[in-house]
Amino acid sequence: MDHEPLDPAMFDPVCPSSPIPVRIGDKWTAMVVLCLQDGARRFSELRVPMAAITPKVLTATLRAMERDGLVIRTAHDENPPRVEYELTPLGRSLLTLIDATRSWSRDHLPALLEARRTYEASAARRAP
Amino acid sequence: MDHEPLDPAMFDPVCPSSPIPVRIGDKWTAMVVLCLQDGARRFSELRVPMAAITPKVLTATLRAMERDGLVIRTAHDENPPRVEYELTPLGRSLLTLIDATRSWSRDHLPALLEARRTYEASAARRAP
Repeated sequence: MDHEPLDPAMFDPVCPSSPIPVRIGDKWTAMVVLCLQDGARRFSELRVPMAAITPKVLTATLRAMERDGLVIRTAHDENPPRVEYELTPLGRSLLTLIDATRSWSRDHLPALLEARRTYEASAARRAP
Repeated sequence: MDHEPLDPAMFDPVCPSSPIPVRIGDKWTAMVVLCLQDGARRFSELRVPMAAITPKVLTATLRAMERDGLVIRTAHDENPPRVEYELTPLGRSLLTLIDATRSWSRDHLPALLEARRTYEASAARRAP
């Protein structure tokens, strides 16, 4: 492997990503694309920064991405068997969109969260 | 109103949008943003190109967008009452992302759908 191991803190679990009004694919697709941007990774490597989701959900995410031509799964004929995932050019094309999303969030997410807080405080005042 | 009525065929119901691996907000947020890009619209106007969803779902979408500061709802003091929705600058900022998404889809969606067909045909051959 010619690239760095993935940082376990790559995705901040406290980061309020759920209100972001843009989602790439299934909930976890964007994370997988980011994890694979430097090259092929084994399942166990992906688990490190994506420890918040179960192996079953990660497997389902990878399979859906394989189906859509976003990743390639390669089983190397070794002992023990080694399975790696890597981005296809199509999968890599999502990076531009992910960057646009992150840039939008950096610029506008605080305003969205502030609007939500204000709305909810006002709704609470109106409630009987 | 100083802008054209919305085209009932603005959103092609046959268009395979569900496999697009990018979603703006709730399922319908991007549609509402596109409907409001030329200016304020009444609920009944929005219903025209968004006839595929129920009034209840459209109301819920608009309320969620209002809560997040993406649209402003204005009730004009007239008889009969007139309620209009329009984009805030924050809501308008989503147009860039929506354009990026549409551009990605135009360039890459056919490849994704082709990959999916190939994968499913291959899976069907492997099935017992």
